[in-house]
Amino acid sequence: MADRPYILVTNDDGIYAKGLKELIDVMQLFGEVVVIAPEMAQSGKSAAITVDSPLRAKRVRDWQDGLEIYKCNGTPVDCVKLAFNQLLDRKPDMVVSGINHGANSSISVVYSGTVSAAIEGSLHGVPSIAFSLSDYDLDADFKYAKIYTAKVFQTVIENGLPQFVCLNVNFPIGKPKGIKVAKQAQGKWMEEYEKRYDPHNHDYFWLTGYFQSYEDESEDADVFVLDNNFVSVVPVSLDMTCYQTLDLIKNWKF
Amino acid sequence: MADRPYILVTNDDGIYAKGLKELIDVMQLFGEVVVIAPEMAQSGKSAAITVDSPLRAKRVRDWQDGLEIYKCNGTPVDCVKLAFNQLLDRKPDMVVSGINHGANSSISVVYSGTVSAAIEGSLHGVPSIAFSLSDYDLDADFKYAKIYTAKVFQTVIENGLPQFVCLNVNFPIGKPKGIKVAKQAQGKWMEEYEKRYDPHNHDYFWLTGYFQSYEDESEDADVFVLDNNFVSVVPVSLDMTCYQTLDLIKNWKF
Repeated sequence: MADRPYILVTNDDGIYAKGLKELIDVMQLFGEVVVIAPEMAQSGKSAAITVDSPLRAKRVRDWQDGLEIYKCNGTPVDCVKLAFNQLLDRKPDMVVSGINHGANSSISVVYSGTVSAAIEGSLHGVPSIAFSLSDYDLDADFKYAKIYTAKVFQTVIENGLPQFVCLNVNFPIGKPKGIKVAKQAQGKWMEEYEKRYDPHNHDYFWLTGYFQSYEDESEDADVFVLDNNFVSVVPVSLDMTCYQTLDLIKNWKF
Repeated sequence: MADRPYILVTNDDGIYAKGLKELIDVMQLFGEVVVIAPEMAQSGKSAAITVDSPLRAKRVRDWQDGLEIYKCNGTPVDCVKLAFNQLLDRKPDMVVSGINHGANSSISVVYSGTVSAAIEGSLHGVPSIAFSLSDYDLDADFKYAKIYTAKVFQTVIENGLPQFVCLNVNFPIGKPKGIKVAKQAQGKWMEEYEKRYDPHNHDYFWLTGYFQSYEDESEDADVFVLDNNFVSVVPVSLDMTCYQTLDLIKNWKF
């Protein structure tokens, strides 16, 4: 790595989101920044990739001198793949994604475009971090999130990350009490659809609901870490094999 | 579970895919089948969910007597969520997804709508299995895939699955030598974009590439199991926490 790392920044709320601008601000303290972000909001896009239509990426020229920014018509993972394979002339030293408007704790890791972009970065062999703030407001206050983004980023720069592992970092609203390394809480979203009828009396459904935890509150699970006003840092593995179950079912007679 | 289990069938290739029809055929041997599948192909949609537009699901009436089929304008995970939360009047005993046209081994588990549908099923507390055949042909021969789908399904019915773990099952082309329980191979897709120019001389990109394994061939990784003409069965965990790394970074000074 050069003295000043080369940092790829992306997100899932899209190129015009406040959280992206805030993340860029922090990253410019540390190194040379290149931004490749979706031109449209991509919340809930998970690790979706565009396979059946062409992708475009355009340099955005009117934002800030010396800052290389591209907008892409694809998903967050499309952005990272395009960056590594086409748009960048050298491999970045770090990939950061966010700062997402809204938490990506517990099972949201599965649905989140923000986290999936970090997973894709680490798949390309680069330490990668997803950052999310537990506030959906478009005009959320990122003051403390930025301070803790810098802390976590600096620590990863110093320590590196194991291969095929990225970090999922969530900030509470307001001033955090500190940082806690946590596990992904077990839980799920409940009662997820609101049924309505259009003017032609045909039904349709809007996604909604609330989160239900399956955890014991004493556990170091990310949702409780956040509820207690700490920043949660969850190491996320790209290997989704359940080795315990693997040992169990090796003895199955099919 | 009743004598004949109630089975939710979905896929990511869409309601008209041959692989879905073949999976329905097998499932009707075992129980009562309800189908909720995307109306359009949804390959590479991962666990994407539709958050900013309404979902619709329509009963398809003209296919087969006594078979309840819905098509949905969303992703595979949307289909499963809608099924559990709105469309079904009781909880299914099993969720099966596929049979996908094309393998979902190794890191494809992250991008696959087929596998994500099974993950969603197990998140709802129901044993869930994703099935994929290593043949992208729209008119692929599913003869052996169907035999082994029945074998794996029967075994899961008898043994159950641990909570929050689903199975990712891949079939080789042709007659399998048998079934092997495997881990998700480490690897990634290489050189993933083809750059072209439109008639206005603006560039665009098509996703393409080849798979590169990072594994030692001696390992019981799904890609080698498939290459050796066995059916691979990988248990997939919904908990993506890397506990090894968690122990490591607990000592970090942020």
